[in-house]
Amino acid sequence: MRAITYTTTGPSSVLGLIDDKPLPTPGPGEVRVRVVVSGVNPTDWKSRQGGSGGEQLPHPLVPNQDGAGVVDAVGPDVSGVVPGDRVWLWDAAWQRTDGTAQEYLVLPSAQAVPLPEAESFDTGASLGIPALTAHRALTAHEDAPDRLAPGALSGLVVLVAGGAGAVGHAAIQLARWAGATVITTVSGDRKGTMARAAGAEHVVNYRTDDVAAAVRALSPRGVDLVVEVNPDANLALDLDVLAPSGTVALYATDTGEPLTIPFRPSMTKNIRYQFILTYTVTAAQTV
Amino acid sequence: MRAITYTTTGPSSVLGLIDDKPLPTPGPGEVRVRVVVSGVNPTDWKSRQGGSGGEQLPHPLVPNQDGAGVVDAVGPDVSGVVPGDRVWLWDAAWQRTDGTAQEYLVLPSAQAVPLPEAESFDTGASLGIPALTAHRALTAHEDAPDRLAPGALSGLVVLVAGGAGAVGHAAIQLARWAGATVITTVSGDRKGTMARAAGAEHVVNYRTDDVAAAVRALSPRGVDLVVEVNPDANLALDLDVLAPSGTVALYATDTGEPLTIPFRPSMTKNIRYQFILTYTVTAAQTV
Repeated sequence: MRAITYTTTGPSSVLGLIDDKPLPTPGPGEVRVRVVVSGVNPTDWKSRQGGSGGEQLPHPLVPNQDGAGVVDAVGPDVSGVVPGDRVWLWDAAWQRTDGTAQEYLVLPSAQAVPLPEAESFDTGASLGIPALTAHRALTAHEDAPDRLAPGALSGLVVLVAGGAGAVGHAAIQLARWAGATVITTVSGDRKGTMARAAGAEHVVNYRTDDVAAAVRALSPRGVDLVVEVNPDANLALDLDVLAPSGTVALYATDTGEPLTIPFRPSMTKNIRYQFILTYTVTAAQTV
Repeated sequence: MRAITYTTTGPSSVLGLIDDKPLPTPGPGEVRVRVVVSGVNPTDWKSRQGGSGGEQLPHPLVPNQDGAGVVDAVGPDVSGVVPGDRVWLWDAAWQRTDGTAQEYLVLPSAQAVPLPEAESFDTGASLGIPALTAHRALTAHEDAPDRLAPGALSGLVVLVAGGAGAVGHAAIQLARWAGATVITTVSGDRKGTMARAAGAEHVVNYRTDDVAAAVRALSPRGVDLVVEVNPDANLALDLDVLAPSGTVALYATDTGEPLTIPFRPSMTKNIRYQFILTYTVTAAQTV
């Protein structure tokens, strides 16, 4: 079968197509999935790029955590999944050599989740990292339950930084579904349209508008939770608009630099900073 | 009646004794307490000291959040408390002008908690800030419940930084009572004896021992929660010894400087940093 692999970290040119990878056989608790769409996230290309690039890997790697497809074979001791089921995949490449950028993929059955008929494989391949990260971020507040459901976030005000990004988009959808009031920031009109399409009721352009004033006009007591994509740029604003006992859920950094957190304002408001690396969380919850 | 007051921030010499303060009358939902012991915490003298000192206050203030005494009178609409009850007090001076450094004190009945006969007034006056801070710190981990009880922290490993301090002492006692494994750090033998008296099973001298090695010998997977009194000095160690999805509960700073948090290590381990200012938390929970 065909697969995309790389054996040295570096730019996208390290990726190569092979057509002689053996078809894998599912073991106990595993399923084999015919991949229809493979999803790419920043974590995928950052892993491929490596630290400085040029590191030789001990095994060829197939990239990409996310994907969607059709179950093709089922190993022993698997229940609830049968060949022909449409599924979405998560964490496929986490601590494994086999991501979703190949025709067939074997992985633990828990990582192949039923995909309703009405949902496209494109959607299915967009859920893993973005939607799980968004879910985890939205459950980080003290008053949020461990799992979202309609009404789970009723009464909470959520600020989604960068509502046009993949995690931001998923966070807006999930937060609205769970009953939160959602404010989001975008850099322009086109992104504002995307954020509104996700369900954002209140969209603020952070390049042209006073975000703190807009937040306060909507929620004088502040926001309970910030889903933060760029803390280096936004942390001062976040602290300014957070309500007491609020939470910042941090899932990305533009710089990788250490984050400088003002101590006394964080203490006075009892702020929680929750760092999130989705695939460690989800993997840990599955074990 | 007599009271200690100050009208200007500054060193302890701004405190004065007055003997003509009118005896206050409890209003609806309030009790009057004859104070037997007034407790002093860092937050009390830091408030008295002020920013640079010398600020003129709009009203005379009676210092001290904590205390213990005997209920002396009860206002309308108060149930479950009668004159003669021994009580401990919390947050007495929080957003009020009347702390515990006076002969009699009126405050909401919820802030006067029954003190068992077997417990001294000294103990009662030591509970407010230290024990509530410790309780809040110990419930900051994702796997901890909102309220501690025997068994609530079973399976969790807690590192208490500075186990001879007031909060550290309370954290050791509460964590052991709730079923956690407790490791604590101290600066010398005398403090180690104090920490052991609180119930610490594993005491490490951070001046002479390798704390990370000692923690790993005890718990190879790391610790789940750090109760941190001095994050500027200890954060690198905390990150090193934390287990995945661990929490740092921060309740004090030696410097007041912004805290620099390494981003990627915090993200890889899904670390939670919970800042705590006890009297805002407890006041918010009471409203």
